[in-house]
Amino acid sequence: MNRLQLRALLDDVQAGALTPEAAQDRLLQVLHQAPFENLGFARLDHHRTLRQGFPEVVFGPGKTPAQIAAISERIVAAGHNLLVTRTTAEAHAAVTARLPEAVFHELARTITLRTSDVPSGKGPIVVAAAGTADLPVAEEAAISAEAMGNTVHRLYDVGVAGIHRLLAEHDRLLSARVIIVCAGMEGALPSVVGGLVDVPVIAVPTSVGYGASFGGVTALLAMLNSCSSGVSVVNIDNGFGAAAIASSINHLP
Amino acid sequence: MNRLQLRALLDDVQAGALTPEAAQDRLLQVLHQAPFENLGFARLDHHRTLRQGFPEVVFGPGKTPAQIAAISERIVAAGHNLLVTRTTAEAHAAVTARLPEAVFHELARTITLRTSDVPSGKGPIVVAAAGTADLPVAEEAAISAEAMGNTVHRLYDVGVAGIHRLLAEHDRLLSARVIIVCAGMEGALPSVVGGLVDVPVIAVPTSVGYGASFGGVTALLAMLNSCSSGVSVVNIDNGFGAAAIASSINHLP
Amino acid sequence: MNRLQLRALLDDVQAGALTPEAAQDRLLQVLHQAPFENLGFARLDHHRTLRQGFPEVVFGPGKTPAQIAAISERIVAAGHNLLVTRTTAEAHAAVTARLPEAVFHELARTITLRTSDVPSGKGPIVVAAAGTADLPVAEEAAISAEAMGNTVHRLYDVGVAGIHRLLAEHDRLLSARVIIVCAGMEGALPSVVGGLVDVPVIAVPTSVGYGASFGGVTALLAMLNSCSSGVSVVNIDNGFGAAAIASSINHLP
Amino acid sequence: MNRLQLRALLDDVQAGALTPEAAQDRLLQVLHQAPFENLGFARLDHHRTLRQGFPEVVFGPGKTPAQIAAISERIVAAGHNLLVTRTTAEAHAAVTARLPEAVFHELARTITLRTSDVPSGKGPIVVAAAGTADLPVAEEAAISAEAMGNTVHRLYDVGVAGIHRLLAEHDRLLSARVIIVCAGMEGALPSVVGGLVDVPVIAVPTSVGYGASFGGVTALLAMLNSCSSGVSVVNIDNGFGAAAIASSINHLP
Amino acid sequence: MNRLQLRALLDDVQAGALTPEAAQDRLLQVLHQAPFENLGFARLDHHRTLRQGFPEVVFGPGKTPAQIAAISERIVAAGHNLLVTRTTAEAHAAVTARLPEAVFHELARTITLRTSDVPSGKGPIVVAAAGTADLPVAEEAAISAEAMGNTVHRLYDVGVAGIHRLLAEHDRLLSARVIIVCAGMEGALPSVVGGLVDVPVIAVPTSVGYGASFGGVTALLAMLNSCSSGVSVVNIDNGFGAAAIASSINHLP
Amino acid sequence: MNRLQLRALLDDVQAGALTPEAAQDRLLQVLHQAPFENLGFARLDHHRTLRQGFPEVVFGPGKTPAQIAAISERIVAAGHNLLVTRTTAEAHAAVTARLPEAVFHELARTITLRTSDVPSGKGPIVVAAAGTADLPVAEEAAISAEAMGNTVHRLYDVGVAGIHRLLAEHDRLLSARVIIVCAGMEGALPSVVGGLVDVPVIAVPTSVGYGASFGGVTALLAMLNSCSSGVSVVNIDNGFGAAAIASSINHLP
Amino acid sequence: MNRLQLRALLDDVQAGALTPEAAQDRLLQVLHQAPFENLGFARLDHHRTLRQGFPEVVFGPGKTPAQIAAISERIVAAGHNLLVTRTTAEAHAAVTARLPEAVFHELARTITLRTSDVPSGKGPIVVAAAGTADLPVAEEAAISAEAMGNTVHRLYDVGVAGIHRLLAEHDRLLSARVIIVCAGMEGALPSVVGGLVDVPVIAVPTSVGYGASFGGVTALLAMLNSCSSGVSVVNIDNGFGAAAIASSINHLP
Amino acid sequence: MNRLQLRALLDDVQAGALTPEAAQDRLLQVLHQAPFENLGFARLDHHRTLRQGFPEVVFGPGKTPAQIAAISERIVAAGHNLLVTRTTAEAHAAVTARLPEAVFHELARTITLRTSDVPSGKGPIVVAAAGTADLPVAEEAAISAEAMGNTVHRLYDVGVAGIHRLLAEHDRLLSARVIIVCAGMEGALPSVVGGLVDVPVIAVPTSVGYGASFGGVTALLAMLNSCSSGVSVVNIDNGFGAAAIASSINHLP
Repeated sequence: MNRLQLRALLDDVQAGALTPEAAQDRLLQVLHQAPFENLGFARLDHHRTLRQGFPEVVFGPGKTPAQIAAISERIVAAGHNLLVTRTTAEAHAAVTARLPEAVFHELARTITLRTSDVPSGKGPIVVAAAGTADLPVAEEAAISAEAMGNTVHRLYDVGVAGIHRLLAEHDRLLSARVIIVCAGMEGALPSVVGGLVDVPVIAVPTSVGYGASFGGVTALLAMLNSCSSGVSVVNIDNGFGAAAIASSINHLP
Repeated sequence: MNRLQLRALLDDVQAGALTPEAAQDRLLQVLHQAPFENLGFARLDHHRTLRQGFPEVVFGPGKTPAQIAAISERIVAAGHNLLVTRTTAEAHAAVTARLPEAVFHELARTITLRTSDVPSGKGPIVVAAAGTADLPVAEEAAISAEAMGNTVHRLYDVGVAGIHRLLAEHDRLLSARVIIVCAGMEGALPSVVGGLVDVPVIAVPTSVGYGASFGGVTALLAMLNSCSSGVSVVNIDNGFGAAAIASSINHLP
Repeated sequence: MNRLQLRALLDDVQAGALTPEAAQDRLLQVLHQAPFENLGFARLDHHRTLRQGFPEVVFGPGKTPAQIAAISERIVAAGHNLLVTRTTAEAHAAVTARLPEAVFHELARTITLRTSDVPSGKGPIVVAAAGTADLPVAEEAAISAEAMGNTVHRLYDVGVAGIHRLLAEHDRLLSARVIIVCAGMEGALPSVVGGLVDVPVIAVPTSVGYGASFGGVTALLAMLNSCSSGVSVVNIDNGFGAAAIASSINHLP
Repeated sequence: MNRLQLRALLDDVQAGALTPEAAQDRLLQVLHQAPFENLGFARLDHHRTLRQGFPEVVFGPGKTPAQIAAISERIVAAGHNLLVTRTTAEAHAAVTARLPEAVFHELARTITLRTSDVPSGKGPIVVAAAGTADLPVAEEAAISAEAMGNTVHRLYDVGVAGIHRLLAEHDRLLSARVIIVCAGMEGALPSVVGGLVDVPVIAVPTSVGYGASFGGVTALLAMLNSCSSGVSVVNIDNGFGAAAIASSINHLP
Repeated sequence: MNRLQLRALLDDVQAGALTPEAAQDRLLQVLHQAPFENLGFARLDHHRTLRQGFPEVVFGPGKTPAQIAAISERIVAAGHNLLVTRTTAEAHAAVTARLPEAVFHELARTITLRTSDVPSGKGPIVVAAAGTADLPVAEEAAISAEAMGNTVHRLYDVGVAGIHRLLAEHDRLLSARVIIVCAGMEGALPSVVGGLVDVPVIAVPTSVGYGASFGGVTALLAMLNSCSSGVSVVNIDNGFGAAAIASSINHLP
Repeated sequence: MNRLQLRALLDDVQAGALTPEAAQDRLLQVLHQAPFENLGFARLDHHRTLRQGFPEVVFGPGKTPAQIAAISERIVAAGHNLLVTRTTAEAHAAVTARLPEAVFHELARTITLRTSDVPSGKGPIVVAAAGTADLPVAEEAAISAEAMGNTVHRLYDVGVAGIHRLLAEHDRLLSARVIIVCAGMEGALPSVVGGLVDVPVIAVPTSVGYGASFGGVTALLAMLNSCSSGVSVVNIDNGFGAAAIASSINHLP
Repeated sequence: MNRLQLRALLDDVQAGALTPEAAQDRLLQVLHQAPFENLGFARLDHHRTLRQGFPEVVFGPGKTPAQIAAISERIVAAGHNLLVTRTTAEAHAAVTARLPEAVFHELARTITLRTSDVPSGKGPIVVAAAGTADLPVAEEAAISAEAMGNTVHRLYDVGVAGIHRLLAEHDRLLSARVIIVCAGMEGALPSVVGGLVDVPVIAVPTSVGYGASFGGVTALLAMLNSCSSGVSVVNIDNGFGAAAIASSINHLP
Repeated sequence: MNRLQLRALLDDVQAGALTPEAAQDRLLQVLHQAPFENLGFARLDHHRTLRQGFPEVVFGPGKTPAQIAAISERIVAAGHNLLVTRTTAEAHAAVTARLPEAVFHELARTITLRTSDVPSGKGPIVVAAAGTADLPVAEEAAISAEAMGNTVHRLYDVGVAGIHRLLAEHDRLLSARVIIVCAGMEGALPSVVGGLVDVPVIAVPTSVGYGASFGGVTALLAMLNSCSSGVSVVNIDNGFGAAAIASSINHLP
């Protein structure tokens, strides 16, 4: 049960469409569901949708396709939407054997399956990327944000070496409620974006670069030292994490 | 002119309390003000209140008390509220010679002076700190957030080594719209808080610790690797930055 | 000869089941055995069981299956129990050609063969792991501790992002004599566990994570900076090392 | 109330020296005491003696002499023994104004005051130090361990550059129940000690050295990579932490 | 003798204003001057003006005022212009005792004394600085470049957080022959500037910042990873070095 | 249209070979071309030749052969010369399917295709390399510089361990207008070269080395700390970047 | 011509076995040989045997088998002994096609071919290794030292975790003229050895270890901080470099 | 008793100047002297002169003037020569109160007092320094080497930026038996020197530099990666350590 479903149930009670007794039965049923389900190697947190607004997300690395498929099936069986990140076509094949409608987003390396509606965010989230090589991370953020009920506007290849490309999109930046900015190398884009807007900017350093980029560390450090005051930062390549925070902001009542 | 004043002016026009001509005069006056004022060693950004919701903030380090006093006077003269961070009693003395009502917050090492109202944030911001030594950073965040028009709830000395002290304050965490969490040493507190709530958590690593804490780097890295998905991070000891982001979130319409 | 066998021999003498002459012969035989055996590329330390309570352990990396099999055979031939860590199915195949009863623990990547009894530890050792991906390290610790004569309780997927999963196991933590805690990413679990108990906590950082986790360095640093005072730390992914210390503590008279 | 006092009370009940009613009153009194006491800037954890075997310890850095004196007085007023670490003669002067019997250990930079008996550890703890410059850390460990009820044997200036100095003390090492080894520079001593004994070795890297010792980081890394399997490590210069773990091991029933 | 003087001498010979004999005498005098002069603690390189276009520059740190004065006197005595970097008012006082016309540039922390003309550079050098705190480094670059015969245009407080301040100076950037860009914190300014112009950009990371700026390392790394291809980098705070390269470029025939 | 073509057109107008009307048509045609072309995953910057003197360069890593071929075709179609760096024989095969005359430089790992003349640089650029293993980077620099219209002199295997090999080429160094120096390991060559000449030296650290060379970081740091004042530095292995700066210097009017 | 051959020639002249004319011819022949031979991608330094006591050594990484074979043939053709380090069986196969007597040392990963005598070192060099995994580096050192004319004593698996294994070889250590000590992990062995002897100790950190051994960095740092004063250090895994220095010491007249 | 004295005694016996009985008495007296003397905070190693050729050296940092004076007196009382490193004028004043003839070397920051002859080294040791700022380290090496019985030639301010200054001293380099090379910043000097000679080169990185020199780390790394094969390295600023190794080499029989 997610929050939309909880609200609908309570609305039904108020409207007389559901008796308090029936509502009570349904709620007790949810509460009697164990808060987490022990698969031996993992404890699925089935109440997370209520507590945090979206269900447990499957982080792909270190799990076999079979394990991913098993966990995915349990999540969907519990009535939740599915989101698998950092995954592969092989895992998708294993998942579709059990959940034929699961979709694989190749560039974003994610699997999604929507089984129920999610509450809509309040405004658009802009996902900006400095260069072409940043797209896998940007798409992980965009697909994840969409899965969590947000409208996403993509703004790709707007790095600071050609600042006119970014300035040409000033209006779109101003229309956003939250902005996710992905950049590797020197990681300067969030600082420039942060100076142009007054909404929160979530900076995602990417591992794009070579030599002294140190797998994204340089971009990470640059973003932490941003001279623009509206910028906060997540881990290198953590597109999903940025989406989670942005969606949390975008769903504030 | 800040946004509240702009809105009041337009409301007055709508209500007939101000003629369009008078409003036009006032607006032109603002626009004729140069967007930034060159003091030689600095360019004060006088339109920032309109663009980003709060005026330029004075970062104390590397400026003499005389310079801080001069800049402060110009900011107040332009009709803005004053916020000076990372500053000293000496600087405060210099400022009060020109602005007698400026207040010094010793623990937070900040100077504030409110000359006009600021728009109120939508809900409370909780500022949590793991230990006593984190208080200067936590207070910088709290005082800054208050200066930007937010109500702040302080929750201090709730580090993970005595998890019951944090769990005892679960209700207060749940009441927050944004949570700022300050911690040094192993920087674990944001992960635990992030797992308990569904609102955005801004993690502030502090330089508290010794040996392998490396001046806050360990806490910074831990926060970037948080297994809780609603956590984003700012620079070490950057209480002001956390407040700016939290306030930006809290002022979203 | 291990300590249990030494004690049994002396008990037999006291009980009259063994004459002092026969006991003397047996002891001289042990002492005439060279304290280490030179295989050319390695010097096996055959007295270690007496000196340190368990025999020399074979560290797999950098050794060929044939070398591992050869060393394993010499260890068992000298009357010791076998423990091979960080090893592979290929090495196991080579070992079983000579020692058919050797067991391979796939997740733990270890080979064991018990040829004689070992003294029992005084109480249970709890091995806790923050997430599913930490299991190979946790199992290396658990299998090693069992091989050294300890009872092990496993407590997996109890990371701090869902603190209720850990608190639900408070009783089991309190029942432990030593606790081994494995965690990657931000490495916060040992701090929380350390605040709940009064027994020694051995923290094992794992290389689980990505980006700014730096292959376990972040977890390592966090654990070294733990604000809980009962925590000491071993190298990244060193499950065996944690087991050795825990067993040493658990076998103190 | 510490554990010794709890046990004495229950023994008195068994022996008829105390009526169950009187015992009940005394226990309720302890439980009615708030588990932690909020001083505004700190929350004193008064139940820690029962939970973890020793009371809250005052970490000196970042606290004024006045704050240290205030906290010390509260701790003693609650019936606990006092231990202040990383402190100064100035702080000691402030403490003695309220607690005239508090003792300052100059080399160890600690203040102690014993107000009640503490349970004795089971055997001696050896504190070894590689060089003269490591003594402040070694003494912090030794004084702390003594304050927690342990007998301590000091073994100083036994660094590996003159291995005969260490080997001459082999008997004393073998007599220990736990060994704390403090070393800076290359941090090799714990590895050598660890190979000579079968009891747990707690390694404390010190910041002694220059150039590529990086304030103790080299010693820390060396200790984490010890080829001896019975070694675990605490933070740089963390003599108190080593004592806490050693005492925890030494008080296991 | 510098290159301008050498050329003037040869021009005089060509014009008949100087006999070959007199010219020969003067040249032999220069060549008989030892190529370097040994002061015991330093070897002054008196031919450097001819070899590299400007005389040896005095790097202040680690030298006493007396040493700086002695070296300065020798340089001027040899007919060279004087440039002392990273120096103090105390050193200036010592120098003026011997060379009363030496000028101290307080913000730039340099001493200069022009005793002869230097060849003019071909076009203006722009020195840009991101923030007020970068001015000591920017001024070191500007004063040094001027001492080497270049016209300098200063462009200060044009950091990327307010990109309009930089874009407002686009014309001035386009007029430059070489651009020196000083920035601390995230070091993004050279990337933006580099994308706007086609002349060489010399990036100077400054140690301005705190926390994860690591004394300028973050800015340094960002600049090395600039996505703009016309950017090269010098050491942190090395304003003089940037000026030397810029002047070398600006004096190419 | 590059600068040479622009100048030729204006010369034609002056010479009467082209009517102002025809010239106007041609210029309008260029300006009507969108300043950048959006391929979905990339925005090609077609005005860069005019703005920065050479067209957009294709950076190979992270692009498929098909993507590289598609971008290459668009660049050539827009009338620009082609330069692809860090690429492979596979990519070259894909490119030649569309552009049969594209040349692959195996050691330099670059593809070039000249479709129109480029303005010549003013003097020779010397590319020096310390050892044989530095040649891929040196050749990337040399081929790139040649593609940008420069004459290149190669000076390979002149590392400082045999300083006579470098000194034997002193004349060639003195003949250069700019010098690019590639070195791995201790990165000392730029310092020695910088002391011998008065032209700008662009230092390129290479990832050649092992152990404490850290993939080129040691060479990078050494070059940043060069005691020769005419040295600036680019990223590790960034041969192209060095060529771009050198060419920018060499094309200054 | 090496030094032994030079000395023999001069001895022959003194003894009348060679006329001064013949000797002169032979010496002129050597001097007419170019001091280095340019193969295009490398400049072979044929006078190095005279200058530095042993000929140029071929460092394998980054060279194809064909290149290694070509260089090897030129070295032998010039009358020098051959030493190829960090090489493979494939390269050996290529070399033997031209030089059938070249020997491959598998563990040491080196190829050698002795074509003429080399001057003998004055005493034995001991090569000690802490563990079995250090043998490839230790053998590289041992084979290299032997190729340079030294007698080598190997002392393997004598790490500090079992100090009695080292002490049992005290006599052999005392017999050495130079000692090379290879160790990974905590790198403690050189400190212990350095305290037992008065001859130079060359410490070679190896990349053996995992986690916080950082590919040999920990061992490197430990060795640089050795508390024994007779220890100097070479790069990680640089067995050849240690041999070169040891041989240089051992050949001092 | 040092080795020279031991040899003199045995020579006297052989020459009949001393009876075997008297010699026996003298030797027993030495052996009855405890091998180390426990001062409480230090164990003085009085046999080191015999074992390692020079007596224990006093490392100044962390010791009070009074402690240094006390230790110095005990060393001289035991008949050894005195060497105190990293010390101050204050310590010297304390020492001269007890040992009036002790000499303070200000630049080298060392105290020496020769009470008996030391065996002479076989040839000169050259101490080279790249710049003036390296002199304190170079002098520490020079004074220490002289105290150990070596003749020292100083070669200062010969850094690679003016390679002619070094080449002008080629003869002096060739005359050395061991060369100590001190350099900060990019640390290139040992590589150049190592390529010019065939004797061992001991490289000493100094902490001279700023920014990315990281207190000598850059120089250290550069030296470890030297492309010249006869170079080994000691810790940053460790002039004494370099002298000890050089002297050890220079005293080999």
